[in-house]
Amino acid sequence: MSASSITVLGIDPGSRVTGWGIVRETSGVLTLVDCGAVRAKGDEFSERLGMIYHDLHAVIAKHSPDEASVENVFTAKNAASALKLGQARGAAIAACAAHHLPVASYAPTEIKKTLVGVGRAEKEQVSFMVARLLGVKGDWGADTGDALAAAICHLNMRRINFLSGK
Amino acid sequence: MSASSITVLGIDPGSRVTGWGIVRETSGVLTLVDCGAVRAKGDEFSERLGMIYHDLHAVIAKHSPDEASVENVFTAKNAASALKLGQARGAAIAACAAHHLPVASYAPTEIKKTLVGVGRAEKEQVSFMVARLLGVKGDWGADTGDALAAAICHLNMRRINFLSGK
Repeated sequence: MSASSITVLGIDPGSRVTGWGIVRETSGVLTLVDCGAVRAKGDEFSERLGMIYHDLHAVIAKHSPDEASVENVFTAKNAASALKLGQARGAAIAACAAHHLPVASYAPTEIKKTLVGVGRAEKEQVSFMVARLLGVKGDWGADTGDALAAAICHLNMRRINFLSGK
Repeated sequence: MSASSITVLGIDPGSRVTGWGIVRETSGVLTLVDCGAVRAKGDEFSERLGMIYHDLHAVIAKHSPDEASVENVFTAKNAASALKLGQARGAAIAACAAHHLPVASYAPTEIKKTLVGVGRAEKEQVSFMVARLLGVKGDWGADTGDALAAAICHLNMRRINFLSGK
């Protein structure tokens, strides 16, 4: 990381698919570094959590991002799905902690608002804006698009906080 | 681990207090190796998750258990507390995954039944039985007692499966 460059790993955790995306900002210009998704499989749920942890750990080791940004979730369909989603999020944040990566959390509406201007946007709209901002085609899955959106949201917030002297 | 000895790390995850306990079984005799609790602090929830991960990672590195046993949770007061509890559990399981430790999950009622004979037992009853089985005083907190109970439950299940040829 040079003085004018910052690299952020965005993560969209899920018990089946965990999207991730790395965005670099150099002198105000955003570039896509890499992105993908962990498709956690296995009969045992703990195996799936292990996969999320190990895959994200490897991504961080490869790209050495400066900070991480993870979508925060407050609601879920029911307690059972909240527990599953929570565990996936916990495993993802543990991978960041293993590399001593600071983790920022943003509400889904906050991320959407930063990207699309409104808090209630469709996943497709978010992905479209992410692709536009990064100047790429954007042929990724919805989870990867959301992860990149989280990274871009964090970069925006950092800029705003920096400009307002926070 | 010798052929007749197995060491199990039991974990009772919680967003504030995560109990842990290591129990060794040598030729059918249970011994307490070590136990304690991670008291996760920090303004940011992700910091607390990092603490759970790092502390359990250090415990595993120190004692090299063969397997882990974590209480499984299916219900919670509401979605918000389920999300918090889930994240703590995810961070704890990630620490096991980092050491490639196999993780077994047991329902709270299953653990209680193994220890006390009934599925609906008070925490104090469980701690009392754990202390008796380990031949120690048991002056630990409820979360540590539950973690040790998870470890003992897993050792019992392994013995039963071994005897029944599974």
